[in-house]
Amino acid sequence: MMRLLNFMASEGPRLGLKREDDVVDLTAAGLPATLEALLQSGPDYTERVATAAAASKTCIPYSEIEFLPPIINCAKAIAVGLNYVDHAAESKFEPPSYPVLFNRYPTSWVGHDQPIIRPHISDKFDYEGEMAVIIGKSGRYISKETALDHVAGYSVFNDGSIRDYQTKSAQWMMGKNFDRSGSFGPVFVSADELPAGATGLSLQTRLNGEVMQSTSTDQMIFDVATLIALISEAFELVPGDVIISGTPAGVGAARKPQVFMKPGDVCEVEIEGIGILSNTIADEQ
Amino acid sequence: MMRLLNFMASEGPRLGLKREDDVVDLTAAGLPATLEALLQSGPDYTERVATAAAASKTCIPYSEIEFLPPIINCAKAIAVGLNYVDHAAESKFEPPSYPVLFNRYPTSWVGHDQPIIRPHISDKFDYEGEMAVIIGKSGRYISKETALDHVAGYSVFNDGSIRDYQTKSAQWMMGKNFDRSGSFGPVFVSADELPAGATGLSLQTRLNGEVMQSTSTDQMIFDVATLIALISEAFELVPGDVIISGTPAGVGAARKPQVFMKPGDVCEVEIEGIGILSNTIADEQ
Repeated sequence: MMRLLNFMASEGPRLGLKREDDVVDLTAAGLPATLEALLQSGPDYTERVATAAAASKTCIPYSEIEFLPPIINCAKAIAVGLNYVDHAAESKFEPPSYPVLFNRYPTSWVGHDQPIIRPHISDKFDYEGEMAVIIGKSGRYISKETALDHVAGYSVFNDGSIRDYQTKSAQWMMGKNFDRSGSFGPVFVSADELPAGATGLSLQTRLNGEVMQSTSTDQMIFDVATLIALISEAFELVPGDVIISGTPAGVGAARKPQVFMKPGDVCEVEIEGIGILSNTIADEQ
Repeated sequence: MMRLLNFMASEGPRLGLKREDDVVDLTAAGLPATLEALLQSGPDYTERVATAAAASKTCIPYSEIEFLPPIINCAKAIAVGLNYVDHAAESKFEPPSYPVLFNRYPTSWVGHDQPIIRPHISDKFDYEGEMAVIIGKSGRYISKETALDHVAGYSVFNDGSIRDYQTKSAQWMMGKNFDRSGSFGPVFVSADELPAGATGLSLQTRLNGEVMQSTSTDQMIFDVATLIALISEAFELVPGDVIISGTPAGVGAARKPQVFMKPGDVCEVEIEGIGILSNTIADEQ
């Protein structure tokens, strides 16, 4: 039962434990500087967090935290397209019979409260509210039955997309990987705080306060366990890897008229039991 | 004018300079342990290699080298689909008007002389001989005119593909990222050893000695400079990043009857002026 986050201190990134109103600096008590390094440092991380939290003398008010993404860098971040029936329909695709999987580079996301960037070469900047799954235990050919044992916890992701670049070819990679075009956070919530597979949680995306997407995570076509089982057929999943589990209906590109994010807008993605990921939109400097 | 490689020593990876018949251990003379670390350590790497090569007292016969990939790990490896007209035609696609781009994770490739792995869940294991472009200088929104200044050098890549997984959805990622399904090497050749943009080089893929693919790199639809200019619109390219520039006609899946690689087969990809990348095919253990 814990909420962890990466934050920026004057010395660089630090790992923190969120409490009611403050954050305990776990790095000051000897733990690694990032959540991904903690997860990679061995399976007993929950106990080590408890020990470090008891020992740490450094606490920061939550309101003063400068957020970094809960995973700053990882070997693999696999995003899932069209994983809600209503979004597949609005995108004019059949519901997939196999997950639609693509990569996001860590350079494509920022943390909570940081601006996400609309590039100067496109005004088709769209939001996609999603749940992120963070892997805590390595595995290849993981069975669906044991898949949830490999999940360390969950967070919130905005799979920000440059729509015209996403469709310049049939492969979506470009439109999904503009530098600082997505966001991730605010915190990591350990799996034991949520229902198994994080099912049944309400997920909502708001643009300038208006609800644009609203669903429950139990509407995913491929649930978390199925995604892990299928993805791990191709490659080993390792601690710190992220699965970005797909977005429901209501994206800006599918609206009539279309809605795209512009500088000064505020986009929030909220998942019940996890938190609110909020970012302003800025033009490239 | 230099040929560099990563090799395995008892202490771990080392960076080497290939000479006629031997390899100078540059790490023993104080350089980083990998080519990617060298490229990331600053723009004057050519001079530092020369100084280290003069100082190093450790040389290994080339015939005794245990090859690692010239780039073992990198922030981004971007592969290009359908970048030769004849391969687009055999794959039943129109020649693309914009590059078809997807990601390969570093866990999906091995070095020269290492076995590449056919997974037990598919027998549709295909070869794709390609030229790899290795970035030496960071940049975003790079112009086509200055793009080649960002290239450190070139190597050879086998974009090994699990065809049935590549087409399970419209996004190719799964079929292109099976662990140890591709290969990269044997060596890195600095750009100044080759024609500008590495154009006009013969590229040949042989399976058990039989020529399966044969082209010239001047047949690429999008040349190296164009690829760098277009890719860097989405994100910054950084030293060590790799662009895997596409394969010509002759892949196994497009043959009648189809030809797939099986355990014991030997697949070689040769590019004029760079070298021969050779791998045996093995079943998963």
